[in-house]
Amino acid sequence: MTTDAQVTPGSQAALRQANRERVVAALREGGTLTQAEIARSTGLSAASVSNIVRDLRSTGAVSVRETSSNGRRARAVTLLRPPGVVVAIDFANTRLGVALGDSQGRLLLEESIAYDVADDPVRGVRRAVWLTETLLTQARVDHSMVIGVAAAVPGPIDPVSGAVGGITCMPRWAGFAPGSELAERLGLPVTVDNDANLCALAESFEGVARGVEHVVYVNVAQGVGAGVMISGQLFRGAGGTAGEIGHIGLDERGQVCRCGNRGCLETLVGAPHLLDMLPQYSSVEHGATLEGLIAAAVAGDPGCRRIVSEAGSALGRGVAIMVNMFNPQMVIVGGAIAESGELLLEPMRRAMELGALGSALADLQLVQGELGRRAALRGALRTALVSTV
Amino acid sequence: MTTDAQVTPGSQAALRQANRERVVAALREGGTLTQAEIARSTGLSAASVSNIVRDLRSTGAVSVRETSSNGRRARAVTLLRPPGVVVAIDFANTRLGVALGDSQGRLLLEESIAYDVADDPVRGVRRAVWLTETLLTQARVDHSMVIGVAAAVPGPIDPVSGAVGGITCMPRWAGFAPGSELAERLGLPVTVDNDANLCALAESFEGVARGVEHVVYVNVAQGVGAGVMISGQLFRGAGGTAGEIGHIGLDERGQVCRCGNRGCLETLVGAPHLLDMLPQYSSVEHGATLEGLIAAAVAGDPGCRRIVSEAGSALGRGVAIMVNMFNPQMVIVGGAIAESGELLLEPMRRAMELGALGSALADLQLVQGELGRRAALRGALRTALVSTV
Repeated sequence: MTTDAQVTPGSQAALRQANRERVVAALREGGTLTQAEIARSTGLSAASVSNIVRDLRSTGAVSVRETSSNGRRARAVTLLRPPGVVVAIDFANTRLGVALGDSQGRLLLEESIAYDVADDPVRGVRRAVWLTETLLTQARVDHSMVIGVAAAVPGPIDPVSGAVGGITCMPRWAGFAPGSELAERLGLPVTVDNDANLCALAESFEGVARGVEHVVYVNVAQGVGAGVMISGQLFRGAGGTAGEIGHIGLDERGQVCRCGNRGCLETLVGAPHLLDMLPQYSSVEHGATLEGLIAAAVAGDPGCRRIVSEAGSALGRGVAIMVNMFNPQMVIVGGAIAESGELLLEPMRRAMELGALGSALADLQLVQGELGRRAALRGALRTALVSTV
Repeated sequence: MTTDAQVTPGSQAALRQANRERVVAALREGGTLTQAEIARSTGLSAASVSNIVRDLRSTGAVSVRETSSNGRRARAVTLLRPPGVVVAIDFANTRLGVALGDSQGRLLLEESIAYDVADDPVRGVRRAVWLTETLLTQARVDHSMVIGVAAAVPGPIDPVSGAVGGITCMPRWAGFAPGSELAERLGLPVTVDNDANLCALAESFEGVARGVEHVVYVNVAQGVGAGVMISGQLFRGAGGTAGEIGHIGLDERGQVCRCGNRGCLETLVGAPHLLDMLPQYSSVEHGATLEGLIAAAVAGDPGCRRIVSEAGSALGRGVAIMVNMFNPQMVIVGGAIAESGELLLEPMRRAMELGALGSALADLQLVQGELGRRAALRGALRTALVSTV
């Protein structure tokens, strides 16, 4: 849930926000600029620039210094990263991660603990707060120095209420608003977003998709989620549930999915479903994790290879549909299963060739993420930082 | 293919174009405005506004009059619809339509002739030119008065080359650029777009989707196409093939589709496939058209009702996936089959409830188009008009 989801496009507020973003972008690009230079490079009027700079200054986002330009008085504006620390929290399925970053976007500290998203969400939030406070103490950062917090959850977030949607891998979290709960306990505003969205953001800004405009990030874990970037912006749809690749029905006669459909992609590639397929007398022990299954596949276990290969085919069929819909330039595969590399990607590619239009595949890159499992935390750090400007 | 597809987002050219669009939008909203008023309402600088107004004036898009405001000299700017006529051409599957509109967007004349999109495209273009010239003569409009031309085709258009894509219901048109051919014969610039895109535009601006931001228009004819509006803008994806609903594979064991996939939505609801299902000894004669089939279904023929009902279910499954992907506020069903009304929509709704997430369905409207078969022509008239400003 980001604030810009609440601005009606085309409204005066949207126009003001767009103008503000132009000014910030010009400063990011050009370093210190005079107000006149900002006006020239953005096309905005001197009055608009002056108003926007005043607002940015009042929130501490820029510094303003009197100077002269061509013998005339001028005001030089510099974008300030307010000194301070941002906090990123990743509620993954079996691990809870927290990272601290500085105001330049650099990682300071990172730690994760075992945890289960199937447990009580209030308990999850308490553990996240505890881990955050522990890291802050460790980094000798006073609580008052924290300038932004963002959290990733493996489920859809309602853009209005901030609550987790009903159809998720975290049924006990349904209707629960982790942002409000975190904010109350930390005493700080908190932005919450879906993990796949944050992974897409992170790979677009500092990973494999740097400079790519149209990107689909597919996150395969307990469930399957996707983050969609259109023209460099996260696309959420009217109600925040766009890109729901996990619930594409691929087999009318398949297994009933918790969403009420049959044969959803998630019932073919979600971790519990893959583990259910483990054969009797497999080299992988009963009660194995997805990581164990993947390691066995990579080591050559025929049953595990088959499971990964079928997952690749099913994933390819789902991604083919997504590619026909969004016609992106790049599809990134993330989540633990991506670590099986070509064992997954090769059958995936073959299924995509059968299922997607040639014109949509022509210039498409299918890749693994560069940031791996840290993508969601990196995306949350970035979101926490942006929320402070 | 619209000109804005060729501007790199974020570039100086994109910024200039965005500023220009702001000025035009302000004039459309406010009628005659002084340059100072334009600057105030857009937030642009006086210099930017002055430059943009000069450009718009040089192309005849605005008139500028010296006036005074608060005792100071001012320049009053009025958006001119250049006097003249726009031409819209619709290459539908079995009919070729041409409409003339005036510079206020009003329809002047409309005519259609039988024709087959399976024929030679050069012949199709020649007939379109002939029909255009006939209508111009009929309306006593001199050729020199035509200020814009736009055409709809039932296939994907490459945004760079303007050529029809390889996978279409019009295989002889593949690789053929109808815009260049029309432009050469008419001696006028021509904009060409996919028919579903133009239908989506028309319903968004003057039909059932007025004021709706996120819209999916599904056009069911020989094939199945979709036009997607995101935040009030047509979405085309990186290479112009976004929204390809017709080639969502719904049945792995289904019929082979010309796209190379199996069981595509098109193989379940495209007109030839529906006609193939007509039972022996049906009340509908062999060699019937889709219209005949639909009329029989509406009149109560059990076989035809079954065909329409199954088409509704399949369409609902495909649209459910599209709804999970784009999370729109409205889905519009267009094309001849939409005329069967609830016979189609009721099973469609049921399939959507099974196949789409509750959160994506919660605020979704499923409706028939308001403009019916004239939607593509109306969208082309609008596109032709916009291309002149």
